Amino acid sequence: MADRGGATMQNPVFIPGPTNLPEFLRKAVDMPTLDHRSSAFADLLHPAIAGVRQVIKTREAEVFLFPSTGTGGWETAISNVLSAGDAVLAARHGMFSQRWIDMCQRHGLAVEVVEAAWGAGLPADRYEEILTADKEHRIKAVLATHNETATGVVSDIAAVRRALDAAGHPALLLVDGVSSVGSMDFCFDDWGVDIAVTGSQKGFMLPPGLAIVVFSARAMQACATAKLARCFFDIRDMGRSNAAGLYPYTPPVGLIAGLRLAADSLLAEGLDVVFARHKRIADGVRAAAGAWGMPLCARSPDLYSQTVTTICTPPGFNATGIVTRAADVYQTAFGTGLGELAGKVFRFGHLGQLSDMAALSGLAVLEMCMADLGLPVRLGSGVAAAQEVYRTTAVQPMKQAA
Amino acid sequence: MADRGGATMQNPVFIPGPTNLPEFLRKAVDMPTLDHRSSAFADLLHPAIAGVRQVIKTREAEVFLFPSTGTGGWETAISNVLSAGDAVLAARHGMFSQRWIDMCQRHGLAVEVVEAAWGAGLPADRYEEILTADKEHRIKAVLATHNETATGVVSDIAAVRRALDAAGHPALLLVDGVSSVGSMDFCFDDWGVDIAVTGSQKGFMLPPGLAIVVFSARAMQACATAKLARCFFDIRDMGRSNAAGLYPYTPPVGLIAGLRLAADSLLAEGLDVVFARHKRIADGVRAAAGAWGMPLCARSPDLYSQTVTTICTPPGFNATGIVTRAADVYQTAFGTGLGELAGKVFRFGHLGQLSDMAALSGLAVLEMCMADLGLPVRLGSGVAAAQEVYRTTAVQPMKQAA
Amino acid sequence: MADRGGATMQNPVFIPGPTNLPEFLRKAVDMPTLDHRSSAFADLLHPAIAGVRQVIKTREAEVFLFPSTGTGGWETAISNVLSAGDAVLAARHGMFSQRWIDMCQRHGLAVEVVEAAWGAGLPADRYEEILTADKEHRIKAVLATHNETATGVVSDIAAVRRALDAAGHPALLLVDGVSSVGSMDFCFDDWGVDIAVTGSQKGFMLPPGLAIVVFSARAMQACATAKLARCFFDIRDMGRSNAAGLYPYTPPVGLIAGLRLAADSLLAEGLDVVFARHKRIADGVRAAAGAWGMPLCARSPDLYSQTVTTICTPPGFNATGIVTRAADVYQTAFGTGLGELAGKVFRFGHLGQLSDMAALSGLAVLEMCMADLGLPVRLGSGVAAAQEVYRTTAVQPMKQAA
Amino acid sequence: MADRGGATMQNPVFIPGPTNLPEFLRKAVDMPTLDHRSSAFADLLHPAIAGVRQVIKTREAEVFLFPSTGTGGWETAISNVLSAGDAVLAARHGMFSQRWIDMCQRHGLAVEVVEAAWGAGLPADRYEEILTADKEHRIKAVLATHNETATGVVSDIAAVRRALDAAGHPALLLVDGVSSVGSMDFCFDDWGVDIAVTGSQKGFMLPPGLAIVVFSARAMQACATAKLARCFFDIRDMGRSNAAGLYPYTPPVGLIAGLRLAADSLLAEGLDVVFARHKRIADGVRAAAGAWGMPLCARSPDLYSQTVTTICTPPGFNATGIVTRAADVYQTAFGTGLGELAGKVFRFGHLGQLSDMAALSGLAVLEMCMADLGLPVRLGSGVAAAQEVYRTTAVQPMKQAA
Repeated sequence: MADRGGATMQNPVFIPGPTNLPEFLRKAVDMPTLDHRSSAFADLLHPAIAGVRQVIKTREAEVFLFPSTGTGGWETAISNVLSAGDAVLAARHGMFSQRWIDMCQRHGLAVEVVEAAWGAGLPADRYEEILTADKEHRIKAVLATHNETATGVVSDIAAVRRALDAAGHPALLLVDGVSSVGSMDFCFDDWGVDIAVTGSQKGFMLPPGLAIVVFSARAMQACATAKLARCFFDIRDMGRSNAAGLYPYTPPVGLIAGLRLAADSLLAEGLDVVFARHKRIADGVRAAAGAWGMPLCARSPDLYSQTVTTICTPPGFNATGIVTRAADVYQTAFGTGLGELAGKVFRFGHLGQLSDMAALSGLAVLEMCMADLGLPVRLGSGVAAAQEVYRTTAVQPMKQAA
Repeated sequence: MADRGGATMQNPVFIPGPTNLPEFLRKAVDMPTLDHRSSAFADLLHPAIAGVRQVIKTREAEVFLFPSTGTGGWETAISNVLSAGDAVLAARHGMFSQRWIDMCQRHGLAVEVVEAAWGAGLPADRYEEILTADKEHRIKAVLATHNETATGVVSDIAAVRRALDAAGHPALLLVDGVSSVGSMDFCFDDWGVDIAVTGSQKGFMLPPGLAIVVFSARAMQACATAKLARCFFDIRDMGRSNAAGLYPYTPPVGLIAGLRLAADSLLAEGLDVVFARHKRIADGVRAAAGAWGMPLCARSPDLYSQTVTTICTPPGFNATGIVTRAADVYQTAFGTGLGELAGKVFRFGHLGQLSDMAALSGLAVLEMCMADLGLPVRLGSGVAAAQEVYRTTAVQPMKQAA
Repeated sequence: MADRGGATMQNPVFIPGPTNLPEFLRKAVDMPTLDHRSSAFADLLHPAIAGVRQVIKTREAEVFLFPSTGTGGWETAISNVLSAGDAVLAARHGMFSQRWIDMCQRHGLAVEVVEAAWGAGLPADRYEEILTADKEHRIKAVLATHNETATGVVSDIAAVRRALDAAGHPALLLVDGVSSVGSMDFCFDDWGVDIAVTGSQKGFMLPPGLAIVVFSARAMQACATAKLARCFFDIRDMGRSNAAGLYPYTPPVGLIAGLRLAADSLLAEGLDVVFARHKRIADGVRAAAGAWGMPLCARSPDLYSQTVTTICTPPGFNATGIVTRAADVYQTAFGTGLGELAGKVFRFGHLGQLSDMAALSGLAVLEMCMADLGLPVRLGSGVAAAQEVYRTTAVQPMKQAA
Repeated sequence: MADRGGATMQNPVFIPGPTNLPEFLRKAVDMPTLDHRSSAFADLLHPAIAGVRQVIKTREAEVFLFPSTGTGGWETAISNVLSAGDAVLAARHGMFSQRWIDMCQRHGLAVEVVEAAWGAGLPADRYEEILTADKEHRIKAVLATHNETATGVVSDIAAVRRALDAAGHPALLLVDGVSSVGSMDFCFDDWGVDIAVTGSQKGFMLPPGLAIVVFSARAMQACATAKLARCFFDIRDMGRSNAAGLYPYTPPVGLIAGLRLAADSLLAEGLDVVFARHKRIADGVRAAAGAWGMPLCARSPDLYSQTVTTICTPPGFNATGIVTRAADVYQTAFGTGLGELAGKVFRFGHLGQLSDMAALSGLAVLEMCMADLGLPVRLGSGVAAAQEVYRTTAVQPMKQAA
């Protein structure tokens, strides 16, 4: 099991999700069986949905909670609004945008792929060109990965909306917000998003098991004519059941109870405070990378993700060795490079619950691994850079001696 | 929340799943985040799969664990081995067999439906006639609901296999074992089952969130030619990842840790002992129904389910009132009648962890509800009938005074 | 361990404490280590103390929480206000009053023991005679056991206060409220109690580990001259530390966090509602005893405890056999007879969290044991009597059909 | 509460007890109510006692588990073997040795106090002189604090035994092992210890609430004639009850279940491995102090405690400010200086469960606090020193590339 006695302790994880679980959310999820056909279940479900709505900043969009994962959320998104042969516009600039493209292709959709560098943002200008050229509105949906978890790049979704508007194009805007929602600002209504997808195990700091999918009114309408096969992921069954406080099958009651509390907690803290907290922790990690002389995968500061930092190791060095060593020797989990970044980068996830202390401890472990593997990194150097960030931006105690 | 202070206590539930959660499984599921790309995850996954294999009595079939529910398991079963337009043979004799038929139809399958009484078992003889008549082997799959959770009826899967064999028919045998596996005998290999479906929240006594699907070698082969769209539920992605100790997306690690322990626990107790334990508890519930003068929905003793008992109330009486009153007044959950049985029956779930004491307490609550609603049931009469069953079959203490 | 897999389930206990633990209190107690010298600890301690004050109905008395048990609470009470050789007046009418007397004697106190029947209440009239006769005020303290857990007898503490007042006697009134506080009305101020003792594991529904001791202003003054040795249980150290939000040694932080929540919960429910709830459950148990033809140990209805019922079995029958059999065969815990009641009675604890369903299940198990052991008790008879009590007094659902 | 949502996370604590709680022990302690008069309780108690015996390295000494704390353990030790007026020999060289002396005096014992520097070890040579001079064997007990939690000094208990033997003195040897047992070697039998005291919340890594007291055969004999008042802490009641698998009052069942598992875990890991693990973590902390240019309170390496390091700040600086700032700004708990060390030192507790990562994070926080408060400490310097210790002594992974 994960717990091997006093010999080791449960270290925080630094993977870009699932995040470290706050005690109060673990306790909320861990509940005795509650009859999911009773009114007590509706008393959990409806506030959970309302909470997601507020976190994702929509007034009226429909929220669906599937016993599944973000991948199931992607499938929910496309299968409910598209039909085989439909054209879809998507950019490939990381492993997760690539996987969604792959899923579309396997569902028989005609994906127009815009290639972009892994480390670049979503090319909204290229989108605009293509959409403008698509006079017949063959393209039915535009995919956008808000935060590429592979590269640590956040893209400008508002710019994609502007591209659609500039082109006067009616395609639906489908956004992967898996590793952004709840940790970085996501303005469903203001950005004109039609479908947003996230999961329980990222910004909501819960165990995995829930795909959270949000549909705009336009997306809801598209369901009527979409012909892709769906049954488990059919939002019409889900919507009808939910309205009655029910589920079309057995809901993961504990996760829904947790989601309600997670949303409440984020809103009570204040979303702006939550987002600033993420940026502050991320700033420290980026300062450490700078001190080590290692560039980020993200090409410019406007692209820096606040939930995951992808750090490039020197040419010729196998970055995966750091992650393996951290796991094997120091019982600490980081993310490896994925796809074309494999071996070239490692990833430091810093979403959800994390303290200054925890972030510093992750950096300290990385330094030991780097030294162990012969990288010319001075022990304590990255830690010191992050310490400087954290201590100069720390929240000062309210009561201070005169 | 479910817990309203000292005023009420968490009563056991008597719904036919999710079951009451044993302490040790709740604790196993409630774990800190473990990196699902680490070797520690494989150390949970592979034993969990091996455990399911033993519980379902197969030597070599492939086991897949999807973050989903039994409904997702149904979809996994059909979408991986069938193509649009394929003929499927199925019996409708309860709400859950009906729902699986409905799913097939929504996926474009041509379902040949055999109607049977709700309360009857699966008509293997009719299956044999139809399969024998299908000389062209148009039928690609035969569906069978092992335990109809709506009616409390267990069907003879070995008889379905015999029907297929007698007809010399190559159709795949797909079995819904959602409310039977782990609680009643299920002989995957001996019955020649091709795909079996269950969930975490029934015989394995875990929270909901896992579809457990088992594929025979023949079913695995059928994947190659099956054309129904699938991506999230594609067993090929899952199989490849699992072999490497990984997942194609984020796995519900806690549930997998729990599944491993649940299977270990069932096997340590001994499957025969587990099944006998379920029958013994069910015998008490059936005795109580007899004492109340209420017939079972299941038409004959060979059809009696050991996991759920569906009890018919007198004509003209609204059975749902009992369930509502039990919930509202006595904080106790039972199952209502579903579909054409709505209002005519109520259901007492007795699968998973249950003690004599707990079963008796459920019966006592039902009697109070019946009395409250004016049914001519003598208080204590059903309890006494069950007490007689339990005390005469109780395991005697090992050490007794001379 | 307590959990032996699916084979058995955690049945509720029916011992007169520790009680069944509500989920929310278990979760409150189970917390990560919190620095007990930090301000966060004071934020738990002070509300916990304030909550106890409200539950025990005192405006200003001092509350002390020792890492100990009720027995430690007794020692705290006597050792802080008495000196060797001091006379103490006490009644012996059950095992717990006897044990307190024994403790006094071991501390060198001169106990004037009033013998009363085990099943009788505290003889306030005898107290008055003795106190009146004690013109020299040799008696420094009067002991009173509010609820004799051995006999299921509640005594009239206000009457003891009246006896003291009638005699114009200045002795301190020390009350054992271990199995009453939080479950039955306890009016510290109105009854003129000087020291009250209880524990965490009874009406507060927490695990054992805390002695809760309350001192009036007069009792506080007595500390200054009391000469019995005390150090761990010295309320002066404790009081000084607590005032600063600290402890003289390591406090059981989880239990204190739980106590705060337990008190909040009782107060939110309303103490009168809590007490009525206990009486209602107890009424059902007493009705069952009546149906079995078994007298209570408590001699008259005014003496009936609402937290434990002591039931007499027929002469010649060994009552302990019932308790043993319930444990061995039905995994259910009841209390045996203690001291001179051993073998003659068994005890049904019904304090803290308990539902109708749970109480009925305890009665049903007792009936099976009785039948197993050859007692002429009709199965279901006691259950039926309790069902009648519970269903006629059940809280009706708020929303009802017209 | 301790948990304030995603805004902060539960950081490890660095106080010298209670320690960080391992998951598996938290789960063991958090159990439903188990009847403490049932045989299931004995099945927890007796292995727990046997486990303590092995950890403390005694074959036959009696182990007692009181619902209390280490302070209660001290009281148990002295009150069971001494009488008022008895002479006791003790050294004062830290706050905890001072407190035990104070307790003895309050119990009317005549303590011969040997003053030693706070930072020095126990002066066994002075003990020998005094004992040799005590020809009449007026001294009945010798107190020794194995690990002074205030100063971070471990003393040589074997040397005290040698002093007793050299003097041919029959006094009992009473040892405070509160912050050593389970983390540093403690050889009850080999050192000729007569009574050892510890608690649940230190080396056993459990929540507070248990005093663990071990009595040699000679100490057991002394009980017969000891006249100090004791009742709650009377080992004779406890021993008699325990022998029957019972308790003289309500035991803290969860802690006893946890203690059993904690002892099993330490023994499975191997005591030598456990002790080496503590030393390794402590070495890193001491290296950091060296890098900061801050001396330890412990005067020489042979006195270095492996469970707590007491670090001296520069003259004129208020060391408590570091601890306060760590708590207020970085939500991290360290220990302050106590008694005459107040303001001059801070303490880093590193007993029980701790990882390299966690230790480094504590050091990183300390550096931020020091920088914040104007101490001339270079950020990252202490971390780097500890990193060097940890990475050069890390357990290498078993499987390595060729």
